[in-house]
Amino acid sequence: MRTVRVNASSSYDVQIGQGLLRTAGSMISQTLKAKRFAVISDDSVAPLYAETVIESLKSAGLSAELFAFEHGEASKCSAVLNDIYSFLAANHFTRADGIIALGGGVTGDMAGFAAATYLRGMELVQIPTSLLSQVDSSVGGKTAIDIPEGKNLVGAFKQPSLVIIDTETLKTLPRYFLIDGMGEVIKYGMIKSASLFEKLCGYDIDSLPEVIDDVVFDCISIKRDVVEADEYDHGERELLNFGHTLGHSIEQYYNYTGISHGRAVAKGMELITELAAQRGLCGSDLPEKLSACLEKYELKIEIEPALSQLGAATLNDKKRSGSSIDIVICGDVGVSHRERMSVDEFLSWLE
Amino acid sequence: MRTVRVNASSSYDVQIGQGLLRTAGSMISQTLKAKRFAVISDDSVAPLYAETVIESLKSAGLSAELFAFEHGEASKCSAVLNDIYSFLAANHFTRADGIIALGGGVTGDMAGFAAATYLRGMELVQIPTSLLSQVDSSVGGKTAIDIPEGKNLVGAFKQPSLVIIDTETLKTLPRYFLIDGMGEVIKYGMIKSASLFEKLCGYDIDSLPEVIDDVVFDCISIKRDVVEADEYDHGERELLNFGHTLGHSIEQYYNYTGISHGRAVAKGMELITELAAQRGLCGSDLPEKLSACLEKYELKIEIEPALSQLGAATLNDKKRSGSSIDIVICGDVGVSHRERMSVDEFLSWLE
Repeated sequence: MRTVRVNASSSYDVQIGQGLLRTAGSMISQTLKAKRFAVISDDSVAPLYAETVIESLKSAGLSAELFAFEHGEASKCSAVLNDIYSFLAANHFTRADGIIALGGGVTGDMAGFAAATYLRGMELVQIPTSLLSQVDSSVGGKTAIDIPEGKNLVGAFKQPSLVIIDTETLKTLPRYFLIDGMGEVIKYGMIKSASLFEKLCGYDIDSLPEVIDDVVFDCISIKRDVVEADEYDHGERELLNFGHTLGHSIEQYYNYTGISHGRAVAKGMELITELAAQRGLCGSDLPEKLSACLEKYELKIEIEPALSQLGAATLNDKKRSGSSIDIVICGDVGVSHRERMSVDEFLSWLE
Repeated sequence: MRTVRVNASSSYDVQIGQGLLRTAGSMISQTLKAKRFAVISDDSVAPLYAETVIESLKSAGLSAELFAFEHGEASKCSAVLNDIYSFLAANHFTRADGIIALGGGVTGDMAGFAAATYLRGMELVQIPTSLLSQVDSSVGGKTAIDIPEGKNLVGAFKQPSLVIIDTETLKTLPRYFLIDGMGEVIKYGMIKSASLFEKLCGYDIDSLPEVIDDVVFDCISIKRDVVEADEYDHGERELLNFGHTLGHSIEQYYNYTGISHGRAVAKGMELITELAAQRGLCGSDLPEKLSACLEKYELKIEIEPALSQLGAATLNDKKRSGSSIDIVICGDVGVSHRERMSVDEFLSWLE
């Protein structure tokens, strides 16, 4: 087991290793004051892991009630959030109790936002079970739900008290979702770590399991550094959005159903890097290096919309500030910066 | 104009005086970075004051968009919150813009919770226009909405960047709501200030306007002290809940329609003080002193439910922690403490 300590507005450990679900209860009882937990999951993850986690909690003298919602991005909405609130109220959870998020990114967001807001705040444990949520959303405290007008437009910063990453869960993760998670993994290499990027280039989607614990550890360490430097997303943290501005536009074009987040981010990274190369903001060989790595993880994809069709969605982008927007550019592998430009200028890039 | 400075997790001024709505714009432009504001109000307050505030903002070079929802406690729900989010998205508000809450307690809660959660946080100005919101909810950062299972069960701590209290607005406040606000005002005297309590006993609901600026200043100063000592409600701040545990049960009995918050709190203070006197936890003359003061402000009311019928609602009380609950007791005028007891013990008090 390896530990990454995060020192944000509150401090907490991220525990990474094989088989950690079976010892979750003792780790939680050693770390949190709460004795009673709401385990929030979805109907595809709960049948796989909820029993293991709840047994482990009970063995450690803790009690738990399970709530599982329908899996999928469509559940990341206020209606399901209200169902979670009703469950918490019906079971008389108090501010002294805790919430455990057991699942992928949607579950982490829903359970995390509920923990941020029910009774104005309960303790939270993140147990991410997808690659995407393990390397990205479970650490750093960002939680959000979608509203009809856009993705992640409503949310809160809610640091967990503990994050438990059992990399064994990746063995049962469908290949489609493993590929999806690699979009964010390659992003970490691009923005902050040439050594991670080179490591990834030495493997592919099939041989990845040999080094997955290492890779997750590297990603979490990078995320920790970025979150510690800028917890509330006013500067450094925006680097994590590399590929995301266009990525979100792509997801929106497909109504959040046709293309997964990691694939959209991969395409967003490719597109913005090509645009940067055309403008001399990065080496002319960078698009090719990035594409070669994406290829190894089956993340070279085609999309329907032309670049010019991806502009409108940026108007509700959270990174927009008045009439300007921050775009993340990689000057080289492992080297990134923010470019502040007017929305009009960015839209003209896309023409 | 008088100023109370609040030093919580963020620091801000509470400005108190006559006619401040007309200078709100310049105060806001001197204090906040935001240049564009969503003014959130309801359909009874907006016709009275929105134009004055928006003109004042424009004179100060700021821009504003108004959103007014239907007035009343029934609007303090997730459906209206979603309407506010849609309004913010449709008008392309960003994290660099601000929200102004213009109205009573419901408006402060709705706009405050929206400011806490839209794009994970926007700057907030509270402009409370009822006595209840001026002395209580506009300061200290508590925001919440009701859910079908209970009142204020979902919310966030969101400190405003500025609070503007124009006591002229109390002149147009219907007598019913002035009386309502006095419930919380008398509470401040009971828990923390014998001098405020004595001052109140020297006036009544009709002569109150002579000293209202003084009274509001005293209340805000007490609230400031309590919030600075315990922003996140783990101890000292619970003293502000004097009368509220039974008060909430009374409101719930009447389905939040038959009896106003301040009247329910007044009755809650009376009932808990009688119970405390019976158990020797306060002087035997305290119930009478309190009743005499409540009488002067038309807050001596009769309720239908017997004490024993008020117990069940406490099960979802936010002050409950596991199987115990904190009850606030005044040992004398201006002197209060928390009594932690088991829920069963408290229920037996009510039998």
